[in-house]
Formats: sequence, C-alpha cells, structure tokens
Amino acid sequence: MVRAPDRRVVATTDLLVEGRHFRRDWSGPFDVGVKAAAQNLADVAAMGASGTALLVGLAAPGDLPVAWAEDLVRGLAAECARAGASVVGGDVSSADSIMLAITALGDLGGREPVTRAGAQVGDVVAIAGRTGRSAAGLALLAAGRVSGFDALVAAHLRPSPPYAAGPEAAGLGATAMIDVSDGLLADLGHVADASGVLIDVETARLPADPELRAAAEALSAAQGAPGGVAPGPGGVAPGPGGLGWVLAGGEDHALTATFGPGTTLPSHWSVIGTVQKGHGVTVDSRPASGVTGWSHFR
Amino acid sequence: MVRAPDRRVVATTDLLVEGRHFRRDWSGPFDVGVKAAAQNLADVAAMGASGTALLVGLAAPGDLPVAWAEDLVRGLAAECARAGASVVGGDVSSADSIMLAITALGDLGGREPVTRAGAQVGDVVAIAGRTGRSAAGLALLAAGRVSGFDALVAAHLRPSPPYAAGPEAAGLGATAMIDVSDGLLADLGHVADASGVLIDVETARLPADPELRAAAEALSAAQGAPGGVAPGPGGVAPGPGGLGWVLAGGEDHALTATFGPGTTLPSHWSVIGTVQKGHGVTVDSRPASGVTGWSHFR
Repeated sequence: MVRAPDRRVVATTDLLVEGRHFRRDWSGPFDVGVKAAAQNLADVAAMGASGTALLVGLAAPGDLPVAWAEDLVRGLAAECARAGASVVGGDVSSADSIMLAITALGDLGGREPVTRAGAQVGDVVAIAGRTGRSAAGLALLAAGRVSGFDALVAAHLRPSPPYAAGPEAAGLGATAMIDVSDGLLADLGHVADASGVLIDVETARLPADPELRAAAEALSAAQGAPGGVAPGPGGVAPGPGGLGWVLAGGEDHALTATFGPGTTLPSHWSVIGTVQKGHGVTVDSRPASGVTGWSHFR
Repeated sequence: MVRAPDRRVVATTDLLVEGRHFRRDWSGPFDVGVKAAAQNLADVAAMGASGTALLVGLAAPGDLPVAWAEDLVRGLAAECARAGASVVGGDVSSADSIMLAITALGDLGGREPVTRAGAQVGDVVAIAGRTGRSAAGLALLAAGRVSGFDALVAAHLRPSPPYAAGPEAAGLGATAMIDVSDGLLADLGHVADASGVLIDVETARLPADPELRAAAEALSAAQGAPGGVAPGPGGVAPGPGGLGWVLAGGEDHALTATFGPGTTLPSHWSVIGTVQKGHGVTVDSRPASGVTGWSHFR
C-alpha cells in the first residue's frame, strides 16, 4: 500500500534483460540496481512527479550467487533513497538468464502531469543534467580503455538523473518534458512529434563537457583514426569533441523540457534551443540527420 | 497516470516465465494473458481493493508471432475488464524466452486494507470461489485426457477469481484475507502464521464439486490405480473424491477470509472452518500433514 496524497498516481514500468540492457562482466549487481531504479524513477520525474515506490520482479538462474542479489537490492535501495522512494514489493522467479522488471510509482503533488505533447511555438528548450556521458562510458568499456575516465564509465554504469528537477520544472510551468533515455535528439524528436512542432537545438548553447572531448580524443588516438571514431556497441560515434555523444547518446536520463519564453529558470537548467513551427528536430537549423552519430543511432 | 481517489494505492507485481509458469503447448496466448492479469488482480482483491490498472512488461524472442502478442493483449484486456481495471502502460524487450512482468494497482475505496495478519480466535473461515479445479485441470492436461472435462482444463488455463468478493469482504469486516494461489491449506497457513492462530478446516463444509470427483475417478481408471492417483506435475494428488486437489491445489485464486463470529455472509461465501488458539492449520482437527496431496505439495 503506497500513499497517493494527490489522489492520482503516476506509474511506469521497464524491463532489463541480461545481455541486452546490461552485461554482468561490465556491470556489478549494485550498478544494475542503480540503473534499473534510475531509469524508472527518471520516467516518473519527467512527468513532474516525485517517485514514491518501486516494485521489483527478479527472474534469475538458480545458480545466481545470493551476494549478487543482495548487492542488486542495495543498488536499488540506494538509488531509491536518492529519489525519495522505497522498494515496497516484488516477486522472484527462476529463469535461464537474469531479468529485472521494475515498476515505479510517483506522486504529482497537486500539479498537472507534464507530457510530451504540450510544447508551444516560441517556447525555449532547456536541459537539466548532462548527456553523452553514458555513451562515452560505454564506448570506453567497449574499447577496454577505462583508465583516466572513471567518471564517464560510472555515468554509464550508474546513471544519476536530476530527480528534483522534474517536479521543479512542472512547478515552473514546463509545457512538455522527457527524460533522455534514447538520446537528446531522439527524445526531443518524441516531444516534437507529440507536440506537432519543430525543435531546434543550438550546439553553441550545449553545456561544455571537457571530459567528453578528452575521451573522444583518447579513443581516436587509440584507434589510429584521428578525427573519427567508429560507433561503439551503443551505435553512437563520439563525433567532433564528443558532440555526437551529447546529441545522440542515450541512458543518461537527464531531463529536457520546454518552457514559455518568459520563464526564469534556475541555473541548473540550461537553455539549449527553441520550439518553432514545423516538425522534427534540427541542429543549428540544419537537419539532424547530418549530425555525426545521429544516423547511426536511428 | 491512474486515479487513486482513496489517496492510497495498493500495488502488487508478479513474474510469469515460459516453461515455469505456463507452457505454450498447453496455454494459448489469450489464456496466458487472462492468467497473468487474474493472478495479480486477485492479489489486489485479497487486500479488499478494486483493481484499477495493470502495467505489463513483455520480454519475448524476436521470432514470436505478432498474433501471439496480440492475443496475449486481448487476454489481458478481457480479464482486466472483468475486474474493472485497464492496461495503462508497459514495456517490451527481446529475450530468449517469453517472460511477463505484471504490476496491478488498486483502490481501497476508503476501507482499511485487509492483510493476512488479523485473524482472531473465534472467527469463522470462509471462502468465495472454488479450489482444486486448476490442479485438476493441470492433472488432466498432463495425462492427455482432456475429453469431457473442458471446464476443469479451462479453470487451469484461465482462472476466474471472484474479484468483487474482495472489497465486499473488506466491507463486511473481514479480519484477514488471502487469495488461494499456493493451495487452500498453504494459504490458510500463511494467514495462521501471520495472525498467530490455528485454523481448522472442516472437510464436510467444503463446497461439493462433482466434477472433481468424476475427474479423479477418470484419472484413476486411466492409470489402472483404483483409489489413488500419483501427483501430477503440479505435485498435487487428487485424493479421495478430489479432496487433495481442493485442499492443496493452487492457482484457482479463490478468496478466503476470516470474519468475526457474528458476521452475516452472502451466500457466495461458504464457511469452511474456524480460527482457534494454537498455530498452523488442521483438517477436521487433525494435522494437515496427513492429508493426501498436502505433503506432496509442501
């Protein structure tokens, strides 16, 4: 039984399948727990709600070490604590490989839910949190070159969504919101499609991330391919200075939202573009399909 | 977003794994959908709540026929409609075998939730719905002798919990309640353990079910073992007249509850026993371990 003081509850569910959403040789059980909780609680935050509860289904082979399951639970609990939620129930079953089924519940605190469909022409597009770091971490793991970039690898293994920014954006009147799970352009594309607008991202306004530039250069040097690195297993090439990762990398679970043009935003929200007449997503007013990494992602 | 007019929401989650919880050669996709929805919505009803929403995670191999998934959804929707709930969200993933992760939400309608822990010495034990029919259906499927017992096989493939009886029992002041998923004695054992009482089931008061007797006799004759049939894959032997199935067969999702001694119960609730001082479960005042089927089940 979960409190729902708002008389409405938001609910979202996600599956994580071993070998598809995580690899046991890259992710420890604590990491998997954090990631599983984070991606669901970020979905709740993106509606403008505060996470309240998590239900956890765990299917696993009979030979799974108990310690693995215990560390998984610790990861789930730790990330729930970050979001103000708790694990309230679950189920276990035997299965041939590990699968997690997470359902997150959230409370709207009296606010209307923010959807993908409310962006208006003239709105600004803003982001809380960073993108591209998970994709960079994945590329580093795939290349076996983790040294010196622990923070990026950690960003891939244990995403850290800015939960409080979701209800905050709703309170500031966000017209549409989404968490960046598929990639910034892809997810803004979902908003543009649902809202019937065009969203233009201005690369000059994207928050600078020197670590991404350094990782892109290190990978490029390692592959003897100056200026270009092939997309990794996630399908996203770093692009110049890591811009491909920033625009097309998924799983960071940053929050991006649209706001009316006069909205005063706290400093942890960065304006990165505008909502215009039309449809789809452009980057610096050019078709997004020309952006490194984007076409690979699609 | 799901309405929670009560300001509280009950939530439960279950996994169904192919080969463990269902077999595709026995259960069609519509059956699997009904069963998956029913077992979760019965859990909600057993708390005294009305099911409101279902979230569905479906992991499946890439070669799963689309028609299979469509019929699964039809089964889920049909059973939701019986309970007054709706499928409100979900997720899909590829996986090596089919797995379903269901979360059900429910509304308490202002009533306090009924748990397993409130049974009081002097209470009566009552049941709504029937037990043993799913176990009989499973035994018939395993024996390849379905002819003439379609209703029992259907009871196994598509359980039909008496959802409305859950909130009704709560309204009548049920002190404890559970849905019969593990078997009548096993589930009453959960109530007895949680409540710190002994529950005695009187076999003479169990609702008669001529179909179970007939199925037990037909299986006995087919196996050339008059008077005794070995437990099937579910581990439950029919016992004399099918009594083993009734007492130990799981997955019917009948509701069993305890009520204060003066409670007037509607006719679809049958009193089957009493709550006494002590601990555990007895059958006709004898240890339940002596009952056919029970020890196999444990």
